[in-house]
Amino acid sequence: MEPESDTGAGYVQSLARGLAVIRAFDESSPEMTLSEVARSTNLSRAAARRFLHTLVQLGYVWSDGRVFALTPRVLELGFAYLSSVSLPEIAQPHLEHLVSEVHESASVSVLDGGDIVYVARVPTSRIMTVSINIGTRFPAYATSMGRVLLADLPEDKLRAQLDEVELAPLGPRTITDPAELREELARVRQQGWALVDQELEAGLRSISVPIKDRYDRVVAAANISSHASRTSPEQAREVLLPPLLETARRIAADLAVSPQSRAVVR
Amino acid sequence: MEPESDTGAGYVQSLARGLAVIRAFDESSPEMTLSEVARSTNLSRAAARRFLHTLVQLGYVWSDGRVFALTPRVLELGFAYLSSVSLPEIAQPHLEHLVSEVHESASVSVLDGGDIVYVARVPTSRIMTVSINIGTRFPAYATSMGRVLLADLPEDKLRAQLDEVELAPLGPRTITDPAELREELARVRQQGWALVDQELEAGLRSISVPIKDRYDRVVAAANISSHASRTSPEQAREVLLPPLLETARRIAADLAVSPQSRAVVR
Repeated sequence: MEPESDTGAGYVQSLARGLAVIRAFDESSPEMTLSEVARSTNLSRAAARRFLHTLVQLGYVWSDGRVFALTPRVLELGFAYLSSVSLPEIAQPHLEHLVSEVHESASVSVLDGGDIVYVARVPTSRIMTVSINIGTRFPAYATSMGRVLLADLPEDKLRAQLDEVELAPLGPRTITDPAELREELARVRQQGWALVDQELEAGLRSISVPIKDRYDRVVAAANISSHASRTSPEQAREVLLPPLLETARRIAADLAVSPQSRAVVR
Repeated sequence: MEPESDTGAGYVQSLARGLAVIRAFDESSPEMTLSEVARSTNLSRAAARRFLHTLVQLGYVWSDGRVFALTPRVLELGFAYLSSVSLPEIAQPHLEHLVSEVHESASVSVLDGGDIVYVARVPTSRIMTVSINIGTRFPAYATSMGRVLLADLPEDKLRAQLDEVELAPLGPRTITDPAELREELARVRQQGWALVDQELEAGLRSISVPIKDRYDRVVAAANISSHASRTSPEQAREVLLPPLLETARRIAADLAVSPQSRAVVR
């Protein structure tokens, strides 16, 4: 029935390679020649050509005959995820309401391995030097949403996570000592929120709370981020935390009655 | 060198099939059993199993052994597009400034076949019954951004587009007569903006302007959308159009000096 004969029982190598070709395009390589794609994916030129031509035929890649670039159709693949889980759509109006109240950017993210991934976001102004989109990833250990998500992991999974990751000093105040991070996670678990002060990036302060499913499991985190010059840690706790907790409660209530509640998030 | 032997010279069928498996998950099918995936992709159970297991190994699909669902890692694929073109990142701060000024949602989209695809968006409140995200698609003919983008197509490409599409009445006022649509596109081309009044959806009014590259080609469109009860067509032209034109001018100016200017958008 299946024409292709891939290596390894049940593993379709050409799918893995084709997805690697899509992911080879990025900010530093928005357009690539055939040779450049082959080099960055470790494929032969002949193989790279076949993958690129297939992606061109499927409408995911554009070419002028010399260089190749992704088309907006690639967004459909990410959109398949967004429309298959109910969390982003449920969270969005609640975030919009929150942002209209506090006039700071708010987001929802989920844990994927050692990273948080943004699945909903309402920005206000450009307070970070890095740009954040749906799909943006950051190391969980250095973000307030990541702390909230890590704090709910069972001990064995948390240990596996922390064993894997190197706690690099991403901002001027990043916690890089595993014992100190564990203490902070215990505090986050106990108090029900996390405040991260310039650990991911200088000037950035962020406060997060968990979003729970109907079984009381933490399935996502919601945050408000602000520039450090605008919001002191005390103000974050006193002014931002109450409406953020209320927002997470409302999102959780909507999730609990969602017909897609089993597929809240993966 | 290449282990797989796909059908057709240069076409990697298993890549096409694997991408179809990803796209099979959506709002109505967020979780599927193996049989359901096989049915919706027209694959044999054996083939569907191999694709799903490959996607699980690559981290794009999650399974509890019975059902399968996409993981947030899938967003990375869409993110590859967003980070490979400069338009979304360049447009975002300008849209944020515009929204802070007019207090209505603003977006930027590009043309992909007969659809517009959102590549940047700053929402204010939930004015539409359908939700809009980066990657959301709408038929170009019924949207103001689509009109601006269609209006700049060379005659042969426009004819091909209009021949292909059926002008369905999506809203209470949708233009469904091809001759009338052509007249409207000529008007849009001449006046440099498009106003669409409840053609995509009842209650939704949207005004759009083109974003041009350094060669004066329309590469994208920017819009402001508002609820019809809040903004009359006259107000859209008098109050919203001037800051929108200024926003498009600023985005175009930034695009012209972008080091990625060749990969502004595909």
